[in-house]
Amino acid sequence: MKIMQVEKTLVSTNRVAELGHRPLLVVREKVGGGRQVAIDAIGCIPGDWVLCVGSSAAREAAGSKDFPSDLTIVGIIDHWQVEEKA
Amino acid sequence: MKIMQVEKTLVSTNRVAELGHRPLLVVREKVGGGRQVAIDAIGCIPGDWVLCVGSSAAREAAGSKDFPSDLTIVGIIDHWQVEEKA
Amino acid sequence: MKIMQVEKTLVSTNRVAELGHRPLLVVREKVGGGRQVAIDAIGCIPGDWVLCVGSSAAREAAGSKDFPSDLTIVGIIDHWQVEEKA
Amino acid sequence: MKIMQVEKTLVSTNRVAELGHRPLLVVREKVGGGRQVAIDAIGCIPGDWVLCVGSSAAREAAGSKDFPSDLTIVGIIDHWQVEEKA
Amino acid sequence: MKIMQVEKTLVSTNRVAELGHRPLLVVREKVGGGRQVAIDAIGCIPGDWVLCVGSSAAREAAGSKDFPSDLTIVGIIDHWQVEEKA
Repeated sequence: MKIMQVEKTLVSTNRVAELGHRPLLVVREKVGGGRQVAIDAIGCIPGDWVLCVGSSAAREAAGSKDFPSDLTIVGIIDHWQVEEKA
Repeated sequence: MKIMQVEKTLVSTNRVAELGHRPLLVVREKVGGGRQVAIDAIGCIPGDWVLCVGSSAAREAAGSKDFPSDLTIVGIIDHWQVEEKA
Repeated sequence: MKIMQVEKTLVSTNRVAELGHRPLLVVREKVGGGRQVAIDAIGCIPGDWVLCVGSSAAREAAGSKDFPSDLTIVGIIDHWQVEEKA
Repeated sequence: MKIMQVEKTLVSTNRVAELGHRPLLVVREKVGGGRQVAIDAIGCIPGDWVLCVGSSAAREAAGSKDFPSDLTIVGIIDHWQVEEKA
Repeated sequence: MKIMQVEKTLVSTNRVAELGHRPLLVVREKVGGGRQVAIDAIGCIPGDWVLCVGSSAAREAAGSKDFPSDLTIVGIIDHWQVEEKA
């Protein structure tokens, strides 16, 4: 799993039906690192350091084997020091 | 999921039957970044910033568990600032 | 899917039975890029620019869910400009 | 599989139910390399050099096909020389 | 599939039961490249240039859908020139 920080919500009105209305969050691996988009399975807010699961496990973690996710937030990290950039 | 921009359509006449006649789009992660090819499950045009799902989720997102895709466009991003290069 | 160019055939006499006698092709993402090996599901010749699918989709694209491939050529690109290095 | 070293335990109180109470360990590929988080299927302590499996195999290795892991520790390496940084 | 060279055997006494007693080999993509660990499904010796399959195909190639491998050696390359570093 990757340690990432939540940046903001992503708005995508035109999306495949399988995504439903699940929130899409822009996350990044470290300050200045590349952005990706994750499905939120927990309820996070911008600034949270979170645990993201990828690969085929991201589908089930998002709620069902059919959910089209390759990156899902599965936990909020209690304490993460910024100087410990992942 | 990755944030990518649609560049153009890719023409591949000689292809495996499982791909059908689905449009193939050349996408790239950022200006100057490497190109990949994605299956369009939404209906995009060149210039659109889109959400691409990879891994095993790309198959189902393209329409069925048997579809041979490892990168499928599942949403169009409403607003994406170029300066926010993914 | 990745845009790659076919370089040559790879000879591997001692291989697992599941690979059968399917041709193995050395492919590379761009001139000077790293080499990988793909299963040919189309019928390519050296120099062709091809579309390669990875992840779990590579198995089915190679002919069956049990085929041990993680990179399968699923289409030949009609026209690809060398200056558009993928 | 990747050769990684265990750094410490990660605390995540707010997590998806599927993760249960399984320990989460921060691991890194080499001194100074990026950190990831793995599920411990063996019983490791900080400092151990371990074998981590990713991809879809990480789920089953963590105990069941439904476990949301993309990185699971499946073995402790008996002897690993630091100068052989993985 | 990746072209890798076998370096040596890896000893891991404390491992998950699903790995059985299958040999674990340290492999690397090129001289000086990073090391990974692969399951040997062929019978290789140090120095051999081999074909390694990853992703979900690595499980079946290692003998069964339940085998926890994400990198399995599926063929020995007959001739590989060192100057053709993969």
